[in-house]
Amino acid sequence: MSNPATGVTAALGFRAAGVAAGLKTSGKSDVAVVVNDGPLKNAAAVFTSNRVAAAPVHWSRRVIGDGRADAVLVNSGGANACTGPEGFQNTHASAERTAELLGISATDVLVCSTGLIGDQLPMDKLLPGVEAAVQALTVDGGTEAANAIMTTDTVAKEAVRNGNGWTVGGMAKGAGMLAPALATMLVVISTDAVLEPSQLDGALREACRLSFDRVDSDGCMSTNDSVILLASGASGQSPVRTEFQQALTELCQDLARQLIADAEGASHDIAIRTFNAANEEQAVLVAKTVARSNLFKAAIFGQDPNWGRVLAAVGTVPEALAAFDPDQLDVSMNGVQICRNGAIGDSRDLVDLSGREVRVDIDLKAGEAEATIWTNDLTHDYVHENSAYSS
Amino acid sequence: MSNPATGVTAALGFRAAGVAAGLKTSGKSDVAVVVNDGPLKNAAAVFTSNRVAAAPVHWSRRVIGDGRADAVLVNSGGANACTGPEGFQNTHASAERTAELLGISATDVLVCSTGLIGDQLPMDKLLPGVEAAVQALTVDGGTEAANAIMTTDTVAKEAVRNGNGWTVGGMAKGAGMLAPALATMLVVISTDAVLEPSQLDGALREACRLSFDRVDSDGCMSTNDSVILLASGASGQSPVRTEFQQALTELCQDLARQLIADAEGASHDIAIRTFNAANEEQAVLVAKTVARSNLFKAAIFGQDPNWGRVLAAVGTVPEALAAFDPDQLDVSMNGVQICRNGAIGDSRDLVDLSGREVRVDIDLKAGEAEATIWTNDLTHDYVHENSAYSS
Repeated sequence: MSNPATGVTAALGFRAAGVAAGLKTSGKSDVAVVVNDGPLKNAAAVFTSNRVAAAPVHWSRRVIGDGRADAVLVNSGGANACTGPEGFQNTHASAERTAELLGISATDVLVCSTGLIGDQLPMDKLLPGVEAAVQALTVDGGTEAANAIMTTDTVAKEAVRNGNGWTVGGMAKGAGMLAPALATMLVVISTDAVLEPSQLDGALREACRLSFDRVDSDGCMSTNDSVILLASGASGQSPVRTEFQQALTELCQDLARQLIADAEGASHDIAIRTFNAANEEQAVLVAKTVARSNLFKAAIFGQDPNWGRVLAAVGTVPEALAAFDPDQLDVSMNGVQICRNGAIGDSRDLVDLSGREVRVDIDLKAGEAEATIWTNDLTHDYVHENSAYSS
Repeated sequence: MSNPATGVTAALGFRAAGVAAGLKTSGKSDVAVVVNDGPLKNAAAVFTSNRVAAAPVHWSRRVIGDGRADAVLVNSGGANACTGPEGFQNTHASAERTAELLGISATDVLVCSTGLIGDQLPMDKLLPGVEAAVQALTVDGGTEAANAIMTTDTVAKEAVRNGNGWTVGGMAKGAGMLAPALATMLVVISTDAVLEPSQLDGALREACRLSFDRVDSDGCMSTNDSVILLASGASGQSPVRTEFQQALTELCQDLARQLIADAEGASHDIAIRTFNAANEEQAVLVAKTVARSNLFKAAIFGQDPNWGRVLAAVGTVPEALAAFDPDQLDVSMNGVQICRNGAIGDSRDLVDLSGREVRVDIDLKAGEAEATIWTNDLTHDYVHENSAYSS
């Protein structure tokens, strides 16, 4: 019988919970705990490459060093970033409290925080919240946990993939500062497959490369990005490597797509695909450069198929970093080839940008590689939410 | 007696004009001509490093090759970028017509265009406009010319510096796509000093490096950026090299500052200064990275002294590219040190961001170099203007 639980508790061997500890002024849930009941306690994680990394990132990097993690503590309502030695002590104390309640070692407790940068966490609220969350742990608590890690997200994000006798499921939060390098935002994934830490690590890095690393909502890399993968081995099944890789990559792409669909203030999800690139790295670079053009993103908000701004962005990529002839570039939007050989193509009046999803295809005519980067438009609401951010 | 004319006709030996040719739907002036009456016809220019360069940039790069230019033709109401062979032929035809009317060679006519990318210029309007502009040339036509090169600019931009018996003056247009590399936007500068093309070229590159290259309004590099410097020698004075360099640099900084003050939709001008950097290149890189953070720029729009977003942006600069210890960074806003040693400093309530000008000072504690980058906030009006761009 398959497990009816969702997200991070879809796989066997995991319990989770989410509770309201008062860190969010809204009173919504803000503390989540995920526990791996084994028999295996294997884990892997990737973290932000931002040099200004939050206290919980510094802590969790140490925890994951031995490939073992028994539990993950996540709080929203405060990023615990740029908080100095006191911030690190607070992370340490919250891991200690979690470990004490669960009867495990603090050095096996991963910690994630999300929210405003530059404020100390209210420990008088967080620690009782940890206690309440541990008491509330259940095998179908995945959605409760997914709700508790939200900040400006409007919906909880979960996904599940089933393999041959094993399951992998996860939860994510995003909304702002979506431009990961290596990892992104907060993501916790669990599987009941039998996998060693080194297998988890390799599979997670490959899956991130093809999912979260292909998302660039606003060009801003977070101080707190963490993607965690826990394996309980509770299914007793050792998956075929390629099958697990495919399921994990699809799961991550599913979560990444949900992050873009719920990005702060966005009114369009934009898939920028570069093809016929000399190699995949160049395809990614060109697409990301377009994804970071405010002028292009504002035009899409206005439903203006302004291909000139696509070309202006592509043209800023130095010759040493991507091969293409500016006079050979083709650009299509939602299937209409509005730019041909670097100049005017079919009528822009044929392009319909009224839907949520926009597809931009850029033909570099320099090789056979391709890549797709997902981004959002630049809207009034993005400016509004980020000029009035306070939670 | 000093010349009462302003901007590009402040120096002796120059005539200019601006007329309405109907390229702008608003009916405002849109064609400018600047003529160097000599006796010298020396010139230098720097152009956009965007690989997708407009037809007039391709043309003008050839013209400037021999260090001579007799005239500059500028049109607004159309960028003539991404217009293919027809676009280049149109630029060539407009240079030919200008040359014919002035009795000079087309290969001595620099051409600049600005406006929407991806439309052909209406030559049936432009060529009569060139004729009208040439007929209207006067020794005090600088301001008329400065008006005619505006797009979404709200005010004409001119500046003048006087040396020991010589003058240097210029005009500029900016407003959008303000993130130059090498050159920026359209700028035409003239001097009556006696200077050789190689002297002009060296002085112009140095001045641009310290002015237009230190401006990054929206991270978007234009296809049409051109900065032109013409020398007539009409004063008969050969300036001291350092004096001319200083005057030219100050003039360019003056114009650059005017561009930021009139950037599309901006409500704050932000000076991001990094100091105690290992070298100037690193100081520039760190400041530019902050200048490109949409989250930081939206916070300033909301008058939120969100130093966490400054640190999050600084942290994205790889170790190989800039030396600093994240736990040693200090950040001040308008003089209040709100971040000390990478963590919480003085109260953010002390920071007043109600004025137009904002100063952010970032202490890298890694050396003795410094640099200041000017940028703007990210506002509702920026999104509005660029989602509804149509002129």
